[in-house]
Amino acid sequence: MFYPEPISKLIDSYMKLPGIGNKTAARLAFYTIEMPDEEVTDFAKALISVKRDLSFCSICGNITDQDPCEICSDESRDKSTILVMESSQDVVAMEKMREYHGRYHILQGVLSPMDGTGPEDINIPTLIKRLQEDEEIIEVIIATNATSEGEATAMYLSRLIKPSGIKVTRLAHGLSAGSDIEYADEVTLLKAIEGRQEI
Amino acid sequence: MFYPEPISKLIDSYMKLPGIGNKTAARLAFYTIEMPDEEVTDFAKALISVKRDLSFCSICGNITDQDPCEICSDESRDKSTILVMESSQDVVAMEKMREYHGRYHILQGVLSPMDGTGPEDINIPTLIKRLQEDEEIIEVIIATNATSEGEATAMYLSRLIKPSGIKVTRLAHGLSAGSDIEYADEVTLLKAIEGRQEI
Repeated sequence: MFYPEPISKLIDSYMKLPGIGNKTAARLAFYTIEMPDEEVTDFAKALISVKRDLSFCSICGNITDQDPCEICSDESRDKSTILVMESSQDVVAMEKMREYHGRYHILQGVLSPMDGTGPEDINIPTLIKRLQEDEEIIEVIIATNATSEGEATAMYLSRLIKPSGIKVTRLAHGLSAGSDIEYADEVTLLKAIEGRQEI
Repeated sequence: MFYPEPISKLIDSYMKLPGIGNKTAARLAFYTIEMPDEEVTDFAKALISVKRDLSFCSICGNITDQDPCEICSDESRDKSTILVMESSQDVVAMEKMREYHGRYHILQGVLSPMDGTGPEDINIPTLIKRLQEDEEIIEVIIATNATSEGEATAMYLSRLIKPSGIKVTRLAHGLSAGSDIEYADEVTLLKAIEGRQEI
């Protein structure tokens, strides 16, 4: 015996979270014992709620608690542009910028032949159907991550969509704001040179 | 809107845990969405359980799911020695060593005039009562932390208990195993000199 069963069970649960090891889990569990009853009850309810009340938007594939999601049902947003992203977290980052007023399509993944993820396994069929049915769409901005899978997915989508006459663009790649050229990796520098613009 | 309500509520709950900020909480929340239903349900149950099923042992004050606790009800443990510790986590550390076979008394705190914590606010009255009633006890080992509050609590207990004729000892202070004298602080070095032993 080291811990009473309720504590060891909670430690086990905390340890299932990413980046939380043995000692941190024990610290969190003992901290939880000291927390007000109400906060712990809210925590438990919130856990149950994210599994029960969330689903994917039937239009854009984003994680949502209403269908269609808040963005898809917002009539003030520009219907002519669709920004394609890998995950719902990416949407949050983009929305924080407050400069993009179009709509989204969330793939909820990325093409990865190594992991056996093909176009049918992520939200590519729904994107194609959406582009075919919605005549207001004039531009698709592909905003997959700057990883090899993200690049491959962008190329795949570009080839798939271009024949339909819809404009396909890709987020600019280059130096991050505030970054130091001395520490930039070669691929970033190459992209920065390739994408240079007149000033 | 950045997150659907169920996600933002879970992020708020994760942020109440120590050492977990905004970004980590969001990462944990999105991770939770992807976890198997069963693991999340177990997590929620474990949270409720630590608040509902745990109490303090009526003998030693340790956190327990049974009363008396597992150690107090273990007849094989030496009844003549009581180790006084600040918290239940301290007991876990001591039990991991597997060399102490006596019993415990957990103060669940430490004397701290600055915070208004007096002897009545921690398990000192129950310790005194226990020492008066249990004639088998011949030694009390004080194992409060090596902080100023821990030292003050040890001194207070020592003065309180000594007149009764029970032996009062304190854990040795000095260099940690594997530590480097070069980096030891002055107080530790002073304790190491003061507590030097013949070899």
